[in-house]
Amino acid sequence: MNSNFNQYLTKLNQEIDAFPFGENPKELYEPIRYILSLGGKKLRPMLALMAYKLTKSDWESIVRPAAAVEVFHNFTLMHDDIMDNAPIRRGHATVHEKWNTNIAILSGDTMLVRAYDMLLEINPSILPQVLHRFNKCAVEVCEGQQIDMNFESRTSVSVEEYIEMIRLKTAVLLGFSLELGGMLGGLEKSNISLLYDCGINLGIGFQLKDDLLDVFGDKIKFGKQVGGDILSNKKTFLLITALDIATDEQRKKLDYWLTAVDYDNNQKVAEVTQVFQELNLETLANQKINQYFEKCHIALNHLSVDEIKKTELKEFMDYLINREN
Amino acid sequence: MNSNFNQYLTKLNQEIDAFPFGENPKELYEPIRYILSLGGKKLRPMLALMAYKLTKSDWESIVRPAAAVEVFHNFTLMHDDIMDNAPIRRGHATVHEKWNTNIAILSGDTMLVRAYDMLLEINPSILPQVLHRFNKCAVEVCEGQQIDMNFESRTSVSVEEYIEMIRLKTAVLLGFSLELGGMLGGLEKSNISLLYDCGINLGIGFQLKDDLLDVFGDKIKFGKQVGGDILSNKKTFLLITALDIATDEQRKKLDYWLTAVDYDNNQKVAEVTQVFQELNLETLANQKINQYFEKCHIALNHLSVDEIKKTELKEFMDYLINREN
Repeated sequence: MNSNFNQYLTKLNQEIDAFPFGENPKELYEPIRYILSLGGKKLRPMLALMAYKLTKSDWESIVRPAAAVEVFHNFTLMHDDIMDNAPIRRGHATVHEKWNTNIAILSGDTMLVRAYDMLLEINPSILPQVLHRFNKCAVEVCEGQQIDMNFESRTSVSVEEYIEMIRLKTAVLLGFSLELGGMLGGLEKSNISLLYDCGINLGIGFQLKDDLLDVFGDKIKFGKQVGGDILSNKKTFLLITALDIATDEQRKKLDYWLTAVDYDNNQKVAEVTQVFQELNLETLANQKINQYFEKCHIALNHLSVDEIKKTELKEFMDYLINREN
Repeated sequence: MNSNFNQYLTKLNQEIDAFPFGENPKELYEPIRYILSLGGKKLRPMLALMAYKLTKSDWESIVRPAAAVEVFHNFTLMHDDIMDNAPIRRGHATVHEKWNTNIAILSGDTMLVRAYDMLLEINPSILPQVLHRFNKCAVEVCEGQQIDMNFESRTSVSVEEYIEMIRLKTAVLLGFSLELGGMLGGLEKSNISLLYDCGINLGIGFQLKDDLLDVFGDKIKFGKQVGGDILSNKKTFLLITALDIATDEQRKKLDYWLTAVDYDNNQKVAEVTQVFQELNLETLANQKINQYFEKCHIALNHLSVDEIKKTELKEFMDYLINREN
C-alpha cells in the first residue's frame, strides 16, 4: 500500500478510538470497543476518503462520516456472527461467544444507532440525500443476509441468484462508501452514480475473490482456515458452477460430500477441491472476477474528473483486486 | 377517548399500513407487518401529534415522522422479546417464536432502519437536531434494556436504580415523542425541554402503573395474566419496596417464593400478593405514581402556550393516567 493509505488508516483508527460510543452499562459498550479493535482493513471508509479526494483535498474533515461506514459494517458482522453461529472473527472469539447472544443483539443495535450519529455532522443540505442512500444500503445488506440464510435450506441456487445475494450482502456497502465520498465532495449526480456502479462491481468481484481464496488461497497469507466454505457446504460461485458443469461421476462425489455426516475435515476439503480443480474452476472464477473488476474500471474511466485525480483510487482498487488475503 | 384520538389512531394505522417497508425476501418483511398489525395503543405517535398541535393544526402532515416512533418502539419489542424469551406479545406468538431468532434479529434490524427512513421527510433545517435527539433516545432505550437484564442476576436493586432503569427503557421514548412533536411544530427550546420533562415523568408513572396493574389489575381489563412479574421474580418497584420494608416473617415468605423451584403458579401469585397487601403497597405505589404524574402536569403547566391548546394533551394524559389496562 502507498503511504497515503497508511495515513488514512491511522486517522480512521484514531477517530474510531476517540468516538464517544458510551460507557455504561459496560455490557453494551465493551463489545463495541472489542469488535472495532480486532483490526480489519477498513477498506470501506478508505474508499469513501478516496472518492472524496476526487474533488477535495481536506479529507481529514470527513473522517467521522467515513468511519460511520466501518461502524455499520461491524454492526452487521456482530449480528451475522450470531445468525451464522460463528465462533471466531478475525482470529478472536465473536461477541456472542465471548459474552452472550443477548449482549451481541443489543450491543449491535447500539452500534447501528451510533453509526447514524457519526453521519450527523454532514452538511444539512445533503444530509437527507446521504441518509436516504445509507438507509437503502443498510436494508439491502439485511436482505442479502436473509437471502444467504435462505440459500442454506435450498437444494439449488443459480449463479445469477448467488451474484444478486452478494450484490446485496457485500457490494452495496462498497457502492455506498464510494457514493458517500462523492456526495460529500460535491460531485454531480451522474458521477456519483458512476462511483456507485464502480463500488457494486468492485464488491461483487471482491466477494467472488474471497470465495476463491477460501478454497485456493495460501493458508498463511489468507489468515483463516482454507476450505471453510467447503466444510459448511456454502453455495458459493464455485460449488454452484461445479454442480452445474460436473460429469455424473463428479456430481456423485460432490453429492456424497454435501450429505456426508461423519467425515474427516481435511479429506472433505481435499476431495471437493480436487473436483473443483478437475473442472478448471479457478480459471473460470478468475474470468468472472475479472469481468467485474473490468466493469469497475470502466465506470471509473467514465467519471468526468481529472485523470490524475483518479490515480489513487485506481491504485487502491488494484491493491484490492490483487490481494491474497 | 375523545373522537380526535380515534382520528389520530386511524391515520397512524393508515400510514403504517401503506408505508413501503419492502417485500422480498418475505422472511424479512412479513414479521414487520405482523408485529405492527398486532394492534397496540400507539400512544407514542399520538403524543407526538398532540405536542405538534400545541402550535399547528395540520397534524396530518407529520403522521409519517410520528409513526416512526411507533416503528422504532416495535423494533425494540421484537428484539426484547428474543432476549426475554417471551412467547407471547399482545396475545399472539412473538416473532422469534412464530419464525425463528435469526429472523427476529434481522427483521428487527430492518425495522430500525425503516424508522430512520420515516424521519427523512422532516425539514432539513431541523433534521440534524431531531436525529440527534432520536439517536440519544434510541441508545438509552438499549441501555435500559441491558440494565434490566443485569438486574435479573443481581440479588438487590434499589428503588433509585429501578426508576433510572425504567426512565431509560420506557420513559425517554415518551419524552422524545413529545419533543418530536414540539420540534416539528417549531416550539422554542425551553418549551421543547418542558415537553421532554413531561414525557419522562409520564413514562415513569406509566411504567410504575404497569407494574401495579400486573399485580392488582383486573384480569379481564388488563388483558394479560395477572401476576406475571411475580412469577418471573421481576424486581419491580413493588418487590423492591416490599423487601425493603418487610418484617422478618414477611421477608422469609418472600425469600421462600423467590427461590422456590417447584410450585403452583396461582399459589405463588396469591401469597406474594398477600404480602404486598399487608405492606399496603398498592397505596405506596399509587402515591409514587401520582408524584410522577404530578410532575408531568407541572411541566405542562409551565409551557408557554395558550392554555386552551393544552386541553387535548391534558385529556390524553388523564386517559393514560387513569387507564386500567
